Formats: sequence, structure tokens, C-alpha cells
Amino acid sequence: MNNHQLVELGQQLRVDSVRAAASAGSGHPTSSMSAADLMAVLLARHLHYDFERPAHPGNDRFVLSKGHASPLLYSAYKAAGAINDTELLTFRKLGSRLEGHPTPQRLPWVETATGSLGQGLPVAVGIALAGKRLDRTGYRVWVLCGDSELAEGSVWEAAEHAGYENLDNLTAIVDVNRLGQRGPTRHGHDLDAYARRFKAFGWHTVEVDGHDVEAIDRAYGEAASTTGQPTVILARTLKGKGVEAVQDREGMHGKPVPDADEAVAELGGVRDLRVEVQAPPAARVLHAVSSGRPDLPRYDLGDEVATRDAYGHALTALGSARGDVVALDGEVGDSTRTEYFAKEHPDRYFECYIAEQQMVAAAVGFATRGWVPYAGSFAAFLTRAHDFVRMAAISGAGLNLVGSHAGVAIGEDGPSQMGVEDLAMFRAVHGSTVLYPCDAQQTAKLVAAMADGEGIRYLRTSRGKSPVIYGPGEEFPVGGSKVLRASDEDRLTVVAAGVTVHEALAAADALGRDGIAVRVIDLYSVKPVDRDTLVEAAERTGCILTVEDHHPEGGIGDAVLDAFTDGRPVPRLVRLAVRGMPGSASPEEQLHEAGIDADSIAAAARMLVEQAILP
Amino acid sequence: MNNHQLVELGQQLRVDSVRAAASAGSGHPTSSMSAADLMAVLLARHLHYDFERPAHPGNDRFVLSKGHASPLLYSAYKAAGAINDTELLTFRKLGSRLEGHPTPQRLPWVETATGSLGQGLPVAVGIALAGKRLDRTGYRVWVLCGDSELAEGSVWEAAEHAGYENLDNLTAIVDVNRLGQRGPTRHGHDLDAYARRFKAFGWHTVEVDGHDVEAIDRAYGEAASTTGQPTVILARTLKGKGVEAVQDREGMHGKPVPDADEAVAELGGVRDLRVEVQAPPAARVLHAVSSGRPDLPRYDLGDEVATRDAYGHALTALGSARGDVVALDGEVGDSTRTEYFAKEHPDRYFECYIAEQQMVAAAVGFATRGWVPYAGSFAAFLTRAHDFVRMAAISGAGLNLVGSHAGVAIGEDGPSQMGVEDLAMFRAVHGSTVLYPCDAQQTAKLVAAMADGEGIRYLRTSRGKSPVIYGPGEEFPVGGSKVLRASDEDRLTVVAAGVTVHEALAAADALGRDGIAVRVIDLYSVKPVDRDTLVEAAERTGCILTVEDHHPEGGIGDAVLDAFTDGRPVPRLVRLAVRGMPGSASPEEQLHEAGIDADSIAAAARMLVEQAILP
Repeated sequence: MNNHQLVELGQQLRVDSVRAAASAGSGHPTSSMSAADLMAVLLARHLHYDFERPAHPGNDRFVLSKGHASPLLYSAYKAAGAINDTELLTFRKLGSRLEGHPTPQRLPWVETATGSLGQGLPVAVGIALAGKRLDRTGYRVWVLCGDSELAEGSVWEAAEHAGYENLDNLTAIVDVNRLGQRGPTRHGHDLDAYARRFKAFGWHTVEVDGHDVEAIDRAYGEAASTTGQPTVILARTLKGKGVEAVQDREGMHGKPVPDADEAVAELGGVRDLRVEVQAPPAARVLHAVSSGRPDLPRYDLGDEVATRDAYGHALTALGSARGDVVALDGEVGDSTRTEYFAKEHPDRYFECYIAEQQMVAAAVGFATRGWVPYAGSFAAFLTRAHDFVRMAAISGAGLNLVGSHAGVAIGEDGPSQMGVEDLAMFRAVHGSTVLYPCDAQQTAKLVAAMADGEGIRYLRTSRGKSPVIYGPGEEFPVGGSKVLRASDEDRLTVVAAGVTVHEALAAADALGRDGIAVRVIDLYSVKPVDRDTLVEAAERTGCILTVEDHHPEGGIGDAVLDAFTDGRPVPRLVRLAVRGMPGSASPEEQLHEAGIDADSIAAAARMLVEQAILP
Repeated sequence: MNNHQLVELGQQLRVDSVRAAASAGSGHPTSSMSAADLMAVLLARHLHYDFERPAHPGNDRFVLSKGHASPLLYSAYKAAGAINDTELLTFRKLGSRLEGHPTPQRLPWVETATGSLGQGLPVAVGIALAGKRLDRTGYRVWVLCGDSELAEGSVWEAAEHAGYENLDNLTAIVDVNRLGQRGPTRHGHDLDAYARRFKAFGWHTVEVDGHDVEAIDRAYGEAASTTGQPTVILARTLKGKGVEAVQDREGMHGKPVPDADEAVAELGGVRDLRVEVQAPPAARVLHAVSSGRPDLPRYDLGDEVATRDAYGHALTALGSARGDVVALDGEVGDSTRTEYFAKEHPDRYFECYIAEQQMVAAAVGFATRGWVPYAGSFAAFLTRAHDFVRMAAISGAGLNLVGSHAGVAIGEDGPSQMGVEDLAMFRAVHGSTVLYPCDAQQTAKLVAAMADGEGIRYLRTSRGKSPVIYGPGEEFPVGGSKVLRASDEDRLTVVAAGVTVHEALAAADALGRDGIAVRVIDLYSVKPVDRDTLVEAAERTGCILTVEDHHPEGGIGDAVLDAFTDGRPVPRLVRLAVRGMPGSASPEEQLHEAGIDADSIAAAARMLVEQAILP
């Protein structure tokens, strides 16, 4: 395409953005129009992509970080021949693939779901890392950002990471249209303000008129030929460019243009230019897949091992068996034990420093390229990445997330380091799996099982040592549980997981000495939950006592309820959980203070039995 | 104190840090030792603070962003005469005020709980904003940061905010000891790397040898006399400074020094220097408190009003009645309706742009100074600040957080914009209150009630209009509910909140026409939950059907269970919630697709009644 055609293509993308939003009666045409020329030049001159083979290993990767500009993306798909005009006009309608914000679950050309701002660039950093350090098929990663979203700290985590890792295969294009949702951005059209920031983080910067196709073309060329640094192209644009009624005006965000027909006329009418997007180079398959079963660590009954240790060793073994496993950590690998993997497989280990959002985003990036990421930090600090986990679920990304130092059982460090909300957070994520092992053997098996799961898989590990209670032959299917104590005389069922399993067993022994038989269930699969076993226990014992090292809301107690919300009879329920605000104390003192140790369980069980609250 | 004494004071802080950690058997002495000289000079020469009157309006404010260096903080308290040596040695023990990471709930001199890195600076920005724009008593805010935590994006949100707001009353001191938890930081001792970044964000920067008390003193003086910009002091230090066995060595993070006695000797032995901290200037009381009841908006029955609109109007009225109310927003004030407040009370409105972590942190900062903050964004995007909310709860900070655009009911924008995990997140926060109004009248009352609550108060609002069903005289106590339909013939109870209340009412009407009476409860107080009303409904109707515009985990269904976890009989339960992954569609289509509209409720009720699952 010559420059005149590029200008025409930009106008076509604007026209189609206006038409799509008008058809939907909602959407973001003005945010699309500012970036139309940036998109036109990329599509026609610089992107290497086979729309018929989105999984092609040589394809460049494009991420629309400003996901609300979806009309522009879909208009580009139309220009590239990937969708037709009829589909374009299904935008935002029930059943359409063309959602308000793009998602890879519906469209094969979308790398990652966007729409929560400041996430596209961090994910793109992950893809670029995969490209540079693992895939090495030469693809470039292009990401189109808004200027408003540069206020998100996650953008600067990404900038730091990309600069430090010299990701010269990454180009960020910032559509500096100066207007956010409710008014002007902090820096307006001051491109230098943004350039200073990116430069400080080690990026090559290019400032450009975002409506000058020749200048844009040169900028993209400069980005592609820059080595040793990622490039950011800061493009001065006008929101709503080309339509007087909305151009560069406040109050025109996130709504169709007032008169679509007039706007289309003003933009020169409907066009039907077709772009021949350049083909990617031939490229090999990305990585060797699994090579057999991992040689997982085996533990002897009674061994005292922390589940975080077992995680580290099992992950290392998994990495040896499977070439597609990668590991990430937030600069706490000596605590989470990801460092075991890092030492054995340094080429597939990615240090993310203390930047949990970027860590999860990088994991999403790896997952888009077919890698199987395990990312770990303290359970408490994974709350930092909640929005990223939420969006990863919308993407359908396959992630293994591991939170160590669960609960008050960590002891002296105090509440800031205690994960006591993580089960609630991960259970509420769409399609998630939540696992919480109580011993090393179980941990190892679950670490391996996670690799083949779907969506977000969360593993909760503990800081302190606990005795191995399962033999190496034991299996722990996701969705299962283990009945550790059972008899015909059981008066109630104690449901525990992780550290409280050991407390429950001790309580059962103590109660047994007093002639009170209780059933004990290890609910290692918190989601999905083992309905059959819980229902049977409820039918047999009539009452369930849950005990968890977590706040009462959203954790094991609520998970148990999941088995009984289909209208069937519900057993009596008593819930022991962390209700106060812990301070510093030893692990044993913490469990006691929180009322979730063996003594507390036994006392609660006795009260229930002796006060004849139970039948 | 002369320079020699300052050096001695630094050594004393080191000695006491070593002793405290040795006594505890855990803790972070080496991270304390690197910053000891920085702390000594601050305490003796620059801080203005009355330890006997921590609430003094003229007091400077000190935040230990690297909260793990608590031994240093407590050693400084001892040197200032605030605690004695006996208490110092209770560090990290059960019942001690001296926790592993400092919290204001236990110690009156601590502004905010730290220990999750990258949070102290953002909160300090909030305090500095309060100081500069509202309190105006001339206090300075000093914050001691680690170098590792500069990888957190929240630090750069804070840097951007402080630079843009010209917070020259704020000084960040970065203890660049080059070693993180598991090894070297990205930039080691390259002070320039950090200086470039802060400069780009508009800060004045000073680089200094962090063990040269004279240079530190000059740097603090320079910070205090710099106008128009915040200052960052980048101090080159050695982790474990002064003790050969640990100084500048890897693997010495977060543990006592190997031989405490030897270390103390090497540091010159125990000292007992006492610092006379400079008194703050006389200062007026910070702000006028409440002036009577707010003139809340009133709505007529049947009016169609979005609860987000009612929030905006009620907050504005509250702001008129109470001089202590401030509002913050994440650049979506036109959507959340915080803009109504901004227009009426521009002096007490704080635009945080798209930086939800900084928004919540700033709210915490305002709360520390006695202001009553309301901070709003889309419910979905508040997940971005989860870790900040968690830490605010540990601080005991009084925050009002408002999440708009709840649930699939937003319609076409799709899943990235839908808050369907927010109830789970906020319910699991310690001591939280979770409110979810269904009409404008109820919203207005709840907005006013929140102001006087404790801890984290969350209000969930909706995008679309809904009919006003309550008269202006109706009251909505926190912890209450409203029984909207009841009769002696009720076959089951439908518990709803927010948008589903209206669906439940429509379903009840339809069922009533078929002779099936159902009770309907509006559970506007999701936490605490109205136990008595739920228990009575369960006893009368035997079955509860919950319906919520939220994922099934951690929301209204689980909240209802809270009423039944004391061993009492539990009713049968059926839960309607958002189980699939929504796409784009109209609000009505979304509710139907999710199975939470009136038709779905009626169908579920009919199935339960007709299949004789119910008695």
C-alpha cells in the first residue's frame, strides 16, 4: 500500500468503528478513531501475521492494551479479511464474537483479554520474554496502549521488566489522544513527559504525529531495527479524529458518535479496502512437549516436611520431565522454594522481582505461547495481582499459581504476611481450581496434576513442617478428598485442609479417648469440592465442623456448602476459622489464639455433643 | 547531637536491632542495620514529633515502608524514650505491641500497617496530600523505603501522583542496600538508575552515602527546603552494616545475625543514648467535624434511578453536612458519579486517575489524619487494590469504598468490566461491612450510615436504573434486611440484593398468580448479615433460594450461610448465581443468560415446589 492508500485505510477503520458502535448503540468509536492511522500502518506495512493460522509459531503478536478500542480492532480484522462486514455489525450483540472488549475465548486472533487498563503491556512483556528467551522464532510483539492507562503502576512494572530484560522484540505504541474517560489526562499532549519516563526505564523512545502515516511508518521501522532495548512510540493523536462533532472534545468517551451517517460522510464514506498482511516467516514448532511422567519426590510416612519444600522439589522434577514447564517468582523464591527449580532449570526460570502483577501477567504471556507456567509468591501477596488473575480467567489462560505462607500458621511475621483471604479470592475466580495439600506427598502429586488442568489452578502451601501422612502410592484426584477417620459411631464430621488436617487428627484422637468418635475429611481439593463424600458424611453424622486457617468468609466452610446447594437436606454446620486480627506469636500459639488448633476442635466437638445440640 | 553522637546513635540502633531479633529468634536485623544511620539523623535532627501526643496536628509523619525493618523502628522508639528496653525485647512475642511488622492498631506512633512492600510510599502520598491541601499545619511526611520494593508498580503510581501534585512536604528515603530477599536487586548500588526514574516523575533527587551522617543531614535539609517537588534521598548503604559476618552478604535476609553477642561487641557494645526529638510547632485542630444531619436526596416510589446516581447525590449532600468527608476516584467519576461531589466540593475531591492502588492508599492516608474518605471505581477494578484493602484492614483504617457497575447487569461492555468477584473479596476482609442497595432511597441512607462505621465499608452500586421501592422514611440499619413479601403460606424464601431484588419481586408476583406464595428478603447488608430474619424465614419456609449477580462463591449465598453456622438446623438451600462466562449482551439478556432473572427465579421455585423436593 502506498501512503495515499494508508490514509484511506485509516479512514476506513474510522468509518467502520463508527458504524460498529452505531450498530451496537454503545462502544468506544472516538478511542478507536485516534489510533486508526497507527493501526492502518501496522497492519499494512509491519505486522507479519497469518490470519488463517493464528497459532503459526512465526506470527507477530498484537495486543490491544486499550481494549475498549475494540471497534478499531474488529475493523482491522475486517480490512485483513478475517471477518466480514455483516459480522462487524454484530458488535456487542448477544452471541457475537465481537465483544465490548476482545477476548481470546471467542476470537482466535486475540492474545489476551483486555479491558482492565494497564494489563496489555505486562502480558505483552511476557509474550516478548517467551519470544526472546524460549521460542526464538523471531516474532515481534506489538502492543497498542492508551495514554490514560499509563497511570497504572502495572505499566511501570512492565516497563522496568522489559527494559531490564532488553526486550527489543517488543514495541509499545501509545495513542496519546490527551483525553481520558472523564476529561484530560495528567500530561495531555506532552509527549516528552512520557518519553522521560520510558527512557528512565531503559526504553528507546520515538515521538511522532500519530496521524502522519509516513512518520508512523518510519517509527515502526526504527522500532524493528532497534537492538538491546524495547521501543515505545509516543504518538500525538486526536480523540475522535476526523469528525468535527467529537474530535478532541471532552464528554465524547465511550459512546457512539451523535450522528453516524453524517460522521461517515465527513470521513469520506464507506470504503472496502482489503489489506494483504505480510506472512510470517517459516518457523519451527515452539517447544518440545511432555516427555513422560515426572520422577516426583517420595517421602516416608512421618517425615517432617513443609509443603512449600515439596512444591519446590516436585516442580523441579516436573520441569525435568516436561520441557514446556516454566517457573516465575516474585523475588521470594528462597521462601516459596521456586529456587529449587531455578537452580535446576535456569533457562526456564523467570525472576520477576517484587512485582506480583507483572509476574502473573508474564505467566499469562507464557501461557498464550503454549508454555505451562507456575508462578509463586506468598499467598498474601497474590492479592496484589487479583485483577490480573480475574482477567486471566476471562482470557481462559492456563496458569498455575502457588501461594506459600498460608494462614496464621506462619507465626511471628504477623498479619501482613499471612494469607487468610486467598481461598476466597481464588474460589471466586471463574473456572478456577483450588488445592490445599496437608503433606509433602500430596503436594507433589497435586503439583503434577495441576499442569494438565484448565484455567486458573491455585495451590496453597504452608511455611512450617508437617508430618507426611500419605504413602507414595496414594492418588489425589482434583475434585476428591480423603476420609482419614471413619466409623459407624461417628457423631460428627470434621472437615479440614492443609495445616488443620493435622490438628483435626489430633483432636479426633483425643475425642476418641473420651469415647467420642468423629469422622475426619481432608478436603485437599477446595474447588471443585468432593460432593459425594461430603454428602455421605453429612447423612451419616448429621453435623459438619469445618476448621480452616483462613477468614470465615469464602474458604473451606463455604466450599463445603457447595455440596449442599441443590435443595438437598443440609447438615448442621459449625465453622472454626480465623476471626480476630492476629499479632506476632509462634505458629502453635497462633493456631490456638485463632481457635483452630486440636484443642479448639476437640472443645467445639465436645460442646456440640455434650450440649445435645446434635441428635 | 553532634556528628559523633549521631554515629553512636546509629550504632545503638544497630545493636538494639540485633538484640531484638536475637531475643525473638527471628526478624530482619540486617535490613535494619543498613538504614540505622538514616534513621538516627532523622530522629535526632529533622523529625518534629511529640511521642507523648501522637495525634498532635503539628507532628511530622513517619512511615516505615520497608516494614520488615521493624527492629530499627522499635529501636528508634526506645532511643526516643517511647518504649523501654524490656519492651524492646518482647519483639515478635505473643501479646507484644512490637509485631514482626508494625501496625497502628497496637502502636500509636505507627501511621499505617506495612509489611506488604510498595505500600508505605503510596499511603505517605495520601498523608502528604492531606497535609498540603487540607490540614495545612506544616507537617512533613518522611517515608523510609527499601530498594527492592521499588519494583512494585504501586511505588510508581505514588511517584507520579506526588510529582504531579507537587508534594514538597514529602520526603522518600530509599535505603539502597543492593540486596533483596533472595539476592541482588536489579540495579544494585546504581543510585543513578533510581534517580533517573524519580526525576522523570518530577521528583527532586539527592544521592548520598547512607552511612555518612553529615551527608545525610545535608540531604534531609535539602529535602526540607525544596519547594514545588517531592524529594527522594537515594542512600547507598550496606545490608548488615557493621557486622562482618553479615555485612553486604547474600543469604542474610530475614534472620537473626549468627552470633548476637559477638555482633554487639563488634558494634561497640550496648549503649543507652537518649534522643530529644524536636517538638512540633503549635497547630490548630485539623478540620471542622460534622455539622448536623445531611440533607439526603429523596425519591418518589416508582422513580427509575440508578443506585450509582443516588450514591453521587447522597455523597454530595453528606459532604455539605460534614466537613470531614473527602472523595477520591480513579478517573471514572462520570461513571461512578463521584463527579457530583467533585463539582460541589472541589477542595475535598481528589482525582487519582487510573491508579486504583494509589487511590485506596491515598484514602488510607486521609483516614490516618482523621478525614472520612469515600473512594470509588468500577467494582471490577477495585480488585486491583485488593492487597491495599487487606493491609488497610490490618491498619484498622476507616475507609468507604464504592464499587459501581456491579455484575452482569452492566450489559454490553462484557466481562472485563463486570464486578462478579467483589462481594467475595470484600466479605473476606477482616472486620469489613458489605452493603448492596437495590434502590436509590436505600442507597442514600446507606451512604450516610457508612460514614460512621468502623474498618472497611464497601458499597456496591449498579449501572442501570431501577425503580424506587422504599419510601423516604424507611431506615436501613447496617446488619438489617427487609422482608418485602411474606405470608403464612410461603413455600420458600427468596433472598436477593441489589438488581436481583427487583427480579425476585417480579418472580414472586408471577408465582403468586399461580398460587405459590414465596417470601422475599432484600439482603442489603451482606455483611454483617441479618441472622434473626434469615433464621425465622428458614423456620417458616424450610428452604432458601438465593439469587445474586455475582459468582456463586463468596457472595450472597455464602453470606446467608453465615446465619446458620452455629450448629442450628440449616434450611435447604438453592443458589442462583453467575456461573458461566458472560459475553456482550443487553442487561436484560445478561440476567437471563446467567439464570438470575425473574423467569429463572420463578422456574427454580416451581421446580422445587412441584418436584416435591420441598416438604
